[in-house]
Amino acid sequence: MRPILRHLIAACEWQTLRMSLVSNAILSSHVLDRSVHTTRTMGAEEQPLVTLSNINPNVKRMEYAVRGPLVIRAGQLEKELQAGKKLPFDEVIRANIGDCHAMNQKPLTFMRQVISACANPDLLETDLFPSDVKERVKLLLSFCGGRSVGAYSDSAGVEIIRRHCAEYIEKRDGIPTDYLNIVLTTGASEAVRAVLALINSSTADGIPTGVMIPIPQYPLYTATLAEYGMTSINYYLDESNNWQLQIEELQRALDEARGKCNPKALVVINPGNPTGSVLTHDNIKNIINFARKEKLMILADEVYQHNIYAENARFYSFKKVMHEMQVKLELASLMSASKGYMGECGLRGGYCELLNFDPDVKAMFFKMLSARLCSSVLGQIAMDCVVKPPEPGDPSYDLHEKEKSEVLESLKHRAQLAADTFNSIPGMKCNIVAGAMYAFPQIILPEKAIKAAQSLNQAPDFFYAMNLLESTGVCIIPGSGFGQIPGTYHFRTTILPQPDHLRRMMEKVKKFHVQFLEKYT
Amino acid sequence: MRPILRHLIAACEWQTLRMSLVSNAILSSHVLDRSVHTTRTMGAEEQPLVTLSNINPNVKRMEYAVRGPLVIRAGQLEKELQAGKKLPFDEVIRANIGDCHAMNQKPLTFMRQVISACANPDLLETDLFPSDVKERVKLLLSFCGGRSVGAYSDSAGVEIIRRHCAEYIEKRDGIPTDYLNIVLTTGASEAVRAVLALINSSTADGIPTGVMIPIPQYPLYTATLAEYGMTSINYYLDESNNWQLQIEELQRALDEARGKCNPKALVVINPGNPTGSVLTHDNIKNIINFARKEKLMILADEVYQHNIYAENARFYSFKKVMHEMQVKLELASLMSASKGYMGECGLRGGYCELLNFDPDVKAMFFKMLSARLCSSVLGQIAMDCVVKPPEPGDPSYDLHEKEKSEVLESLKHRAQLAADTFNSIPGMKCNIVAGAMYAFPQIILPEKAIKAAQSLNQAPDFFYAMNLLESTGVCIIPGSGFGQIPGTYHFRTTILPQPDHLRRMMEKVKKFHVQFLEKYT
Repeated sequence: MRPILRHLIAACEWQTLRMSLVSNAILSSHVLDRSVHTTRTMGAEEQPLVTLSNINPNVKRMEYAVRGPLVIRAGQLEKELQAGKKLPFDEVIRANIGDCHAMNQKPLTFMRQVISACANPDLLETDLFPSDVKERVKLLLSFCGGRSVGAYSDSAGVEIIRRHCAEYIEKRDGIPTDYLNIVLTTGASEAVRAVLALINSSTADGIPTGVMIPIPQYPLYTATLAEYGMTSINYYLDESNNWQLQIEELQRALDEARGKCNPKALVVINPGNPTGSVLTHDNIKNIINFARKEKLMILADEVYQHNIYAENARFYSFKKVMHEMQVKLELASLMSASKGYMGECGLRGGYCELLNFDPDVKAMFFKMLSARLCSSVLGQIAMDCVVKPPEPGDPSYDLHEKEKSEVLESLKHRAQLAADTFNSIPGMKCNIVAGAMYAFPQIILPEKAIKAAQSLNQAPDFFYAMNLLESTGVCIIPGSGFGQIPGTYHFRTTILPQPDHLRRMMEKVKKFHVQFLEKYT
Repeated sequence: MRPILRHLIAACEWQTLRMSLVSNAILSSHVLDRSVHTTRTMGAEEQPLVTLSNINPNVKRMEYAVRGPLVIRAGQLEKELQAGKKLPFDEVIRANIGDCHAMNQKPLTFMRQVISACANPDLLETDLFPSDVKERVKLLLSFCGGRSVGAYSDSAGVEIIRRHCAEYIEKRDGIPTDYLNIVLTTGASEAVRAVLALINSSTADGIPTGVMIPIPQYPLYTATLAEYGMTSINYYLDESNNWQLQIEELQRALDEARGKCNPKALVVINPGNPTGSVLTHDNIKNIINFARKEKLMILADEVYQHNIYAENARFYSFKKVMHEMQVKLELASLMSASKGYMGECGLRGGYCELLNFDPDVKAMFFKMLSARLCSSVLGQIAMDCVVKPPEPGDPSYDLHEKEKSEVLESLKHRAQLAADTFNSIPGMKCNIVAGAMYAFPQIILPEKAIKAAQSLNQAPDFFYAMNLLESTGVCIIPGSGFGQIPGTYHFRTTILPQPDHLRRMMEKVKKFHVQFLEKYT
């Protein structure tokens, strides 16, 4: 990071973010409540008991841009189109969230066959499914209570699925893995929230627990830290260097935070969301050394581990690098069935591996999770199909490999298309999309546009994104929802629309951007 | 409640509960971590960073008995039996948790056909399913992103399912219902946790937010309140009066709590868990008047609304009674796909209706939920089949009605069997099981048994339950996990084992109890 930018951070960042929050909050209450106002007719004698002034103030503070006002507005526009209203576009393109199937990615045949027969074992009596599907279903059901996916699993998940996760990690990293360290979760989000809840001693200490998070970041982190009254220690990823993570910037962020909070954990998202970057082996090594020196546990968000596109990039797990270094630091590594080539977001499958944790602490973690009973058993089964896909020789193998490689190959092309298009637009620049599912281009906004935004009490990039949506139907999320160096503006778009769709979208963005610049210059 | 008992409460209750917590915690860490100890070989130079002394103290305090040490021990015994070890019994009977399918209840055909075809729409091309199943699947998928259950839904759930929930409530109560007040959740547990998080202003106020909960209660409530640093205001249900809820006891509990916390909500579980009681219309009316007078919102846990067995009992929703009274108090009403006659616990479907909430507050609630993205779409679909079952004339109707009534009829017989058997055992007495899925008999423990328990630092009823498990393989949960008047002892058992199974279990409990009394008298 350039030193000249650093001193800006403390001064401006929160102001920019706050402005965005305010405008978001106003809009979101406005949009959500229209219909409610009409149904609420509380008698004059009865005043509301639960009000904005007495609810949890942390809930008021939290913000979650990828599901925020832009997305709500996109939904309204879709309904207007359906109702036949004339708009300047004929479709809404939802590039706001990494939701593969919503963008018409086809589910994997093997996984959906397994899930359907687990839900309805009568199907095992038909000849609809290959033998490996039937065998998997019988194996999985034999580990479910009453052989039904309708029974609760253990809080940590169905034993055989935890074992399969452990085998997957062993195979990936070449390191023995204990299935008792694995817990199956509702996507990866639940694991993030649980780990942060576990280490949060803000109330007890009177000093907020601090967690280092990358900026830009996936807003689950800031939202959860806000909800829990914890402090985000923001470290900036280096945009001028393909969003790599610089150790000196980690140090700067931590040094500035010490005394203001009690730093306990370092979050790393690799491959990066929203940046699309992939950390190098050396980089991970340095991060681990930093965490060790500074006594921070590591929360490795590795949900995009299958999404690597750049020729020279490779996924290294924090577990593997830590093992090579013979370091034994507490590590929580997260995985999900929602991303990768399967993209099964709606099934809510995920797992978390807890490594090197004190056994007593781990017992507390498991106890805490037991209060939510268990994650969806069908979501766990989705995770099973991810960590244990058909093997060579299995009847489902060829089709599964074909489906998987087609998705990944297509995403690779779309990653390239997105970055190339953005770089061809005047006033826009974009790093290579080396992994994950997003591009995060920087946009240069004219002074007049910034002023127009401010007059509406909106963050400039929110103003840009809302204009884009209203003019073209393209829904992207402004950089202020993820964090960015103050005075810079970005947006995040997924690369998930199908190729033709993505091309159309890129043309719309390009045309809009040129017109926007003309209007405000 | 007898006045003589009241003064005991403040003095003894927490001591009894704490004793149980201590013994539970010791056992649970011991059991969970055996295998972990062998895999953890941290170098001498690296000390654990995350320890019991620096994690979230609220997590340490929370306790969740229905998934606690007894259940873990039951799992071990099952494994020992499988491995051929000789034990005093040949099966473990898990009567610890309301997990219908684990107890071999058969899933409903209609629901499982819909779920399997939603997961695998290729099945629509076969002639395996009746037309109403296929139509439902097509309708549901038309409301999913990319027509796939793998797409995220809106945070509040799939629109058509929310609408079906609203129709269900309208039909049940005869009151217009706005689908925008419905949010689909991961079981009912997620809704409980979200509502409590919303109203928790403990940190901001410096005074803990208080929530009135019944004792005995479902331990999700105490666990969540502990995790959130909130205060449980315990009101005792009247065991001598079939566990009815007495207004004077609500008043006593609240009066004693005022000044120590900031009471904001009243939780009512109806039909009752673990008590099996069903509130009368009059009782609900008085509770609403109390809440209104004391300015408390109501959290109505109504997940057992289909489970009514007693001839003179009927389910009245808080919504319906409030509507009749023309009272407009904030009400959160919870429902689940896990209970009733469907018992689909593993699918994690549920909904929450928020009634009479300030629109701004509701917007905050929805925003908070958006950070967890959405609940399992297949779980939502399970909920859809519950709220919109086949109708007369539909091809699936007859079979569905037959399956449903068989389950409910059988549960009714088992409810009677359980209470009758317990009442036939010397030193045991049990209220009528009018609804839900549990019996909560009181047991008179001899002084010698209490002393034996204390010498092991165990709550006496925990000692009893562990002895029962080790001698007979029957896993029930001691009353101390739910709360009880100090000096009284209970246990909760589900009535879910299939009829023959339940009879065998009852005989085992009877025989054990007699021997236990002989040994300790």
